[in-house]
Amino acid sequence: MCGTDQNPNSASANKTPTANGNGFRGSSVSPDTVLNLEQGDPTVFEPYWKKMGDKCSLVISGGQWMSYVSDFTNVCFFLEPQFEDAVRRLHRTVGNAVVDGRHIVVGTGSTQLYQAALYALTSPGGAEPISVVSAAPYYSSYPDETDYLRSGLYRWAGDAYAFDKKEHGDYIEVVNTPNNPDGTNRKAVVRNRPDDQVKGKLIHDLAYYWPQYTPITAPVDEDIMYFTFSKSTGHAGSRIGWAIVKDKEIAKKMAKFVELSSLGVSKDSQHRAAKIMGVICDGYQNCKAKNPELFFEQCQNLMTQRWKRLREVVNRNEIFSLPKYQEEYCLFSGGLYEPQPAFAWLKCKEDIDAEKFIRGCIKVQGRTGRKFGTDQKYLRISMLSKDEVFDQFLERLSTIKAISNGY
Amino acid sequence: MCGTDQNPNSASANKTPTANGNGFRGSSVSPDTVLNLEQGDPTVFEPYWKKMGDKCSLVISGGQWMSYVSDFTNVCFFLEPQFEDAVRRLHRTVGNAVVDGRHIVVGTGSTQLYQAALYALTSPGGAEPISVVSAAPYYSSYPDETDYLRSGLYRWAGDAYAFDKKEHGDYIEVVNTPNNPDGTNRKAVVRNRPDDQVKGKLIHDLAYYWPQYTPITAPVDEDIMYFTFSKSTGHAGSRIGWAIVKDKEIAKKMAKFVELSSLGVSKDSQHRAAKIMGVICDGYQNCKAKNPELFFEQCQNLMTQRWKRLREVVNRNEIFSLPKYQEEYCLFSGGLYEPQPAFAWLKCKEDIDAEKFIRGCIKVQGRTGRKFGTDQKYLRISMLSKDEVFDQFLERLSTIKAISNGY
Repeated sequence: MCGTDQNPNSASANKTPTANGNGFRGSSVSPDTVLNLEQGDPTVFEPYWKKMGDKCSLVISGGQWMSYVSDFTNVCFFLEPQFEDAVRRLHRTVGNAVVDGRHIVVGTGSTQLYQAALYALTSPGGAEPISVVSAAPYYSSYPDETDYLRSGLYRWAGDAYAFDKKEHGDYIEVVNTPNNPDGTNRKAVVRNRPDDQVKGKLIHDLAYYWPQYTPITAPVDEDIMYFTFSKSTGHAGSRIGWAIVKDKEIAKKMAKFVELSSLGVSKDSQHRAAKIMGVICDGYQNCKAKNPELFFEQCQNLMTQRWKRLREVVNRNEIFSLPKYQEEYCLFSGGLYEPQPAFAWLKCKEDIDAEKFIRGCIKVQGRTGRKFGTDQKYLRISMLSKDEVFDQFLERLSTIKAISNGY
Repeated sequence: MCGTDQNPNSASANKTPTANGNGFRGSSVSPDTVLNLEQGDPTVFEPYWKKMGDKCSLVISGGQWMSYVSDFTNVCFFLEPQFEDAVRRLHRTVGNAVVDGRHIVVGTGSTQLYQAALYALTSPGGAEPISVVSAAPYYSSYPDETDYLRSGLYRWAGDAYAFDKKEHGDYIEVVNTPNNPDGTNRKAVVRNRPDDQVKGKLIHDLAYYWPQYTPITAPVDEDIMYFTFSKSTGHAGSRIGWAIVKDKEIAKKMAKFVELSSLGVSKDSQHRAAKIMGVICDGYQNCKAKNPELFFEQCQNLMTQRWKRLREVVNRNEIFSLPKYQEEYCLFSGGLYEPQPAFAWLKCKEDIDAEKFIRGCIKVQGRTGRKFGTDQKYLRISMLSKDEVFDQFLERLSTIKAISNGY
């Protein structure tokens, strides 16, 4: 048993009610409820959008957007022009990515675009699948999303730091920055010299490169970058992502992948995303001075508060530690601040199974470091749950006093 | 040159404007315009939904449906309960599939569900990929959708009639009924005897099993069946499909595929589909007598008229023929009628490249029989275009008088 101030029931996981950003319906969370902080469900942003009322409402009539096709002359024939315009405007407003002269490919979330990028960089394919790597701790879904179909085009090859390109040949490195799970800024780690015979290609997963999570230090300008509606504004249920691509042929192949995979992307959701992005950009356009009511400011404050409270609790209990981040100047906000990532990457000071410990001790479900290609003493906890779930999490975390044998 | 009453310009395909259900914006189609009847874009149903006005409008507020999760206790955690209810109600209203005691899995169109079914029937996978077959002429996208990732789980093995299971072993047969492209009713063709060592599994693609296309002769009750919003009501842009699955473990694996492929399916579109399906079902519930204004009746009439006019033109020119279908009793409509498929499967009486001929002769883009695993003298033409495009198609088709050498 772990040492805590309370003594939670030992009900098994399956029989215990769970609370997460979504499933939780009451105004308070009972101590018996397992807090699901495993997924990064971004319900923290829901109150902001609820408060916005009709400004963000989208009305879809019965006869609208019925065709498969948006524009056959675009590299991505199912890309709604209003969505494309909104994406370009949002990046120009935030300054986090270069969009001029780039192609936009829409996807069913960034999950589909990751796979579209792998396909675009590897088809038609050689005799052996190309190795796909990312520096550990890497996003826990990359291995499964790469390997579930046992593709002959590509295969997951694990931690980029451990990758020997002399042995394995051509490769793709996924650079996730800021990184999920640990919030660090990343650059490619497999070395590429101009005279190398072995070629590496890069995919930049920029899902979390938004002002509420991290300072915007420059507009990123990489070959293939992708973002998602889920993490930019919190609208995960709409399954909308977009890639910004330099090369036209690569953009076409990514669009071809989405065509083969799902014959396009929901137009209803493309228009919803365009509407929401438009409201955000209108806010900044109409309000030159800093306004704490605007989306990114409000969410930045919200994340700042959560991180401050989390650090206080973690510093007190001396069982876990959190990464330390450097302050940087944010071009968007015009001020210095520290990253405040979407996930807390907790490190236990003893070599125990942190997921199991936290689950058993305070009924909080996180995700073990093992799934991110690293150690069991690490635990990823979502920082994006609803207020009442986050409050309960801190309350419970603060009750842990010691790690006993067998937890 | 082909013999026609008119002499179309010889502008190349790429430089010529095209008209299809979507791209076409004017009130008449110029003779110079290439008519795109290659895809089955179901814009024929647009006027019906436009006429319905606000009854079918969906309002989505800024803070709705933001989570990834609908219900963690469902086999498909991203399935919105309102959508599931609407699907079950629609099938009970139409009587085309058994839903009681079955699991529903939502997909990003039936394209994604086809792949989900392949994954569910083959993972974790053996040493060799399992053969996937369908009786020719088969849907032209099956080969590419099966093989684009060079999966180690499954591979396209072509025409089910030509499949030798003694040589190739276990297999999956896709039964597309009514069949795209030729509108026939299908049953599995690879023989299965109870004592066979080689096992075949079936996937039923029922995209076109709706009263506007074919008589509903019985509720289908197969292991894995899927349908799509695109072809049932015409809302292709929403990318919504659903599978009806007998076995819980298979349903779970299909949902797992959709999770790995796109982390769920647009909730905005699930709710739009639920709304539209609800309006259809309300219509039938509130109106016991036959009413030509109801969706399926109106679309059945529309398709009847189109097929009647097409057959008149085809019978006159003596260059093409169309399949003959048997009248059958439709349980839904309570009357006898012939299938009136979503595609015309034209057969040229001479052994020429029918796609090239029609394209060169009257600037109509169809899809060659070769892509459906059969002969170039066959040509698939969409029957689902907008009225003005369909009218132009018939007008141009009626001008063909002869096939000359070199077309």
